Amino acid sequence: MSEPLVRRLAIIGVGLIGGSLARALRVAGGVGEIVGCGRDEGQLVRAVELGIIDRYSTDPAEAVGGADGVVIGTPVGAMESILEAIRPHLADGAIITDVGSTKGSVVAAAHRVFGSRCPPGFVPGHPIAGTERNGVEASFAELFQRRRVILTPLPESDAGATAAVRAMWEKTGAVVETMTPQHHDEVFAATSHLPHLLAYSLVNTLATLDEKVEIFRYAAGGFRDFTRIASSNPRMWHDISLANRDALLKVMDRFEGDLHQMRQAIEAGDGDYLLEVFTRAKEARDCFVDKAEE
Amino acid sequence: MSEPLVRRLAIIGVGLIGGSLARALRVAGGVGEIVGCGRDEGQLVRAVELGIIDRYSTDPAEAVGGADGVVIGTPVGAMESILEAIRPHLADGAIITDVGSTKGSVVAAAHRVFGSRCPPGFVPGHPIAGTERNGVEASFAELFQRRRVILTPLPESDAGATAAVRAMWEKTGAVVETMTPQHHDEVFAATSHLPHLLAYSLVNTLATLDEKVEIFRYAAGGFRDFTRIASSNPRMWHDISLANRDALLKVMDRFEGDLHQMRQAIEAGDGDYLLEVFTRAKEARDCFVDKAEE
Repeated sequence: MSEPLVRRLAIIGVGLIGGSLARALRVAGGVGEIVGCGRDEGQLVRAVELGIIDRYSTDPAEAVGGADGVVIGTPVGAMESILEAIRPHLADGAIITDVGSTKGSVVAAAHRVFGSRCPPGFVPGHPIAGTERNGVEASFAELFQRRRVILTPLPESDAGATAAVRAMWEKTGAVVETMTPQHHDEVFAATSHLPHLLAYSLVNTLATLDEKVEIFRYAAGGFRDFTRIASSNPRMWHDISLANRDALLKVMDRFEGDLHQMRQAIEAGDGDYLLEVFTRAKEARDCFVDKAEE
Repeated sequence: MSEPLVRRLAIIGVGLIGGSLARALRVAGGVGEIVGCGRDEGQLVRAVELGIIDRYSTDPAEAVGGADGVVIGTPVGAMESILEAIRPHLADGAIITDVGSTKGSVVAAAHRVFGSRCPPGFVPGHPIAGTERNGVEASFAELFQRRRVILTPLPESDAGATAAVRAMWEKTGAVVETMTPQHHDEVFAATSHLPHLLAYSLVNTLATLDEKVEIFRYAAGGFRDFTRIASSNPRMWHDISLANRDALLKVMDRFEGDLHQMRQAIEAGDGDYLLEVFTRAKEARDCFVDKAEE
């Protein structure tokens, strides 16, 4: 039998993502022991009962002891304090990655903790997968199959470490790509973070209207699909909005300008403009998004 | 056997909605002959072949001859010219309704055609049902089952006519409600028209970025759901945006203000504000929209 990819994997934050990663690696093989860590001991006990992790600690410093692989599966706002807590306890040559939805902020946090050079084993990552459900009970081994995982290695990241993190994710059935943290944050500000803000903002606007109960009564299928992402975890999106501030403001300003132009066209009765915008949008969506669905 | 609800029904615009109505009435019984009308003769021939309509005319004036029921199933922008064309040819006591997504504009068009008093048989309506597909081939008899249909009778509408239109829609499995045209337009500006504009506007913004191909590559499930309504028919939404101008501008202005406040909070790093908005939105959606899904 071949050597496992990771002999002892510490997963800090055993929720939907961390739990699904553990499950997928169990199914695929390639990992020895899995040590879970989190603040909610009940979730960790449940994770042991479900066979997702072998044992747990509520102390990140203890959890990473002797681990040759560390995955930080918490919301991005917790990243710096966790890196700070585990820093003195990391094994030499340990591979460290995360699953945060923003990458520039994670790299900045790591530099504050480790100084100008992060450990060569540190390779930030972002699996593009999830559901609106949270917690280890919602986790499942197939979550990452055919999903993208973006790795954003640093200049000081060891090529072998990047290859090891890639190999770990490929074991789960994911398709792994690499890009710079800045490019990652710009792309996801546009395709993920801004849509979430728009969905939250729309539902919030309607919820603050006097006739809100009446209005929601008539919400049909299109509204349900459009606002599904507004049922996401508010704390997670709070963290992301603050962590990806610069890229988000850039694309929000662009969007606000375009939306206001649409508003002006409606006021002016400029049907040609509206038809042009709607047609371009429909063509782009039908072309790019439906293609991506295949 | 009891008398049919409608002996001869003229459906002007035999697309997704008109075709599905014809199919549903066929299945449920309650309609004698169905005469289709439209500009695309190929679609009408296909509708006859599929058994959806009995015969057709491409001339609305001819199609409504001798009909005791008339349904106008075209986009709202075509309403006035169709009412104008059929006006001299309507049978005495004919019931006339439509399926337009805005109601104030339809009532205004009817007043321009009929003068200050519309015919007592005229009862505007709006079935809250649809898919992103168009055309008679996409129609199906179950489209309206458990869907709402809003009727907006005028002061001069005959109570018997309103009851007849209600009975027709109830035959299709729909749940029928009545409200004023103005109230209808305010509710749907908020829950339907604004979301469509936001989806179109977002996809348009992204489609005009330099990195558009790269950006759409990383669009995941959340983005697909969020932008699904941007694949809707641009001409139909052009018509709706112009027809529901006043109610739309009102809710757009409110939304733009709220969105900008969120933008300012992101710039200022005001996490408390963001968490409050995201939490209120999630609670509202989970409470109102999930309840409506049952």
